[in-house]
Amino acid sequence: MTYCVGMLLDRGLVFMSDTRTNAGLDNIATAKKMHTWEVPGERIITLMTAGNLATTQAVVGLLDERTKAPADRQPSILEAPSMFQIAREMGRTLKEVIADNLSGQQEAAATFQATMIMGGQIKGNSPRLFLIYPEGNFIEASADNPFFQIGETKYGKPILVRAYEPKMTFENAIKLLFVSFDSTIKSNLSVGLPLDYVIVERDSMRITHQARVHRDDSYYQTVSTGWGEALKTAFGKLPDFAFD
Amino acid sequence: MTYCVGMLLDRGLVFMSDTRTNAGLDNIATAKKMHTWEVPGERIITLMTAGNLATTQAVVGLLDERTKAPADRQPSILEAPSMFQIAREMGRTLKEVIADNLSGQQEAAATFQATMIMGGQIKGNSPRLFLIYPEGNFIEASADNPFFQIGETKYGKPILVRAYEPKMTFENAIKLLFVSFDSTIKSNLSVGLPLDYVIVERDSMRITHQARVHRDDSYYQTVSTGWGEALKTAFGKLPDFAFD
Repeated sequence: MTYCVGMLLDRGLVFMSDTRTNAGLDNIATAKKMHTWEVPGERIITLMTAGNLATTQAVVGLLDERTKAPADRQPSILEAPSMFQIAREMGRTLKEVIADNLSGQQEAAATFQATMIMGGQIKGNSPRLFLIYPEGNFIEASADNPFFQIGETKYGKPILVRAYEPKMTFENAIKLLFVSFDSTIKSNLSVGLPLDYVIVERDSMRITHQARVHRDDSYYQTVSTGWGEALKTAFGKLPDFAFD
Repeated sequence: MTYCVGMLLDRGLVFMSDTRTNAGLDNIATAKKMHTWEVPGERIITLMTAGNLATTQAVVGLLDERTKAPADRQPSILEAPSMFQIAREMGRTLKEVIADNLSGQQEAAATFQATMIMGGQIKGNSPRLFLIYPEGNFIEASADNPFFQIGETKYGKPILVRAYEPKMTFENAIKLLFVSFDSTIKSNLSVGLPLDYVIVERDSMRITHQARVHRDDSYYQTVSTGWGEALKTAFGKLPDFAFD
């Protein structure tokens, strides 16, 4: 499994992904699930992937090759006129890779499936965030639906629902995501450190912050242990129940 | 879906279940998923079920009929010498019902499956708690593994992992379960109020408390709104993140 969250804030976009990949409990490894394409000052695109690793790496590989060979007849995501067109191109590529993997196989479609979160900004337009399905279609984040999760989404959702605010700072967004990821990692072996994050400030057209957070990161550890204590304190402060 | 939790405390056993059943989003209803059998002063048994409602009602019906007809050749759970034997009987009944539903059908086994949590106490023995699988086998709760969840388990797990304590009072256990259920209900339409709970105090050999908690229950509403605020406060008190 995997856990990735993309968030649309008033200030811009925040992306965080874990790095664990597994083919069964006895075969785990670390893989990057976050990819960025940047034309500094003009556009910035970030993609996070969940699902079959061969599928998602093929998608990224195809997008990359098209990016690097401008003479290629396929449209490049670095030249597409809008984030919407980039989402279409990525969705089409994902659908093609899955269809290609499936052709001549007897296995169920689910085996090769993947889901992606993509966001970014092109100069002159607003930052946009999309959730791209294995079928190649996609939905866009909005004020009603300001963040997307993919992979192992359930454990870390309650805190996002409760604490997300569109006006929050990037620092608070990272703190919130650390809590959400820590809740997931504590409950599910298929999600694991290190974590990657990328922050794109609105209208900056570049990666504002980017880092890999390792197991020994002291701030992550503070959040992880502190959140357990904070939850217990919060729980203790709720009014007590009494039987009738 | 469904959400049920059974907890082994030093003081005894706590059971809570939701009541929503659905055959698709457009077909929801309320069904009791908690069943008790009691021989006051001698034994108390509580069963909670998740999965195919026809399967679980058939299991409860069979257990009930055997209970009410003592001349029946099948062993009755009201006469079994131990909680272990009751778990075996329930597991066997579950497996039989699933096998019976499957026979002559082409559908996948998953359609008829169900999982159950069963606990109780027989005079002279300790309270015991079991998780019974569709295959008819089961595991028992212990100090290392003191609570079981079935159904839609993920949203409500992080708070259980953090705040459960074997020494907690029944009142605190109900409060904790309300928080866990509320987190689940807020995130997933397939789990819904009202909630049923049963509390069995160690060595009492009877139901100590039992109630149905409706949507307008004022304490539940206090926990539901209060927990959102408490989480935000707890989140605010965590040390702030700073970019390097």
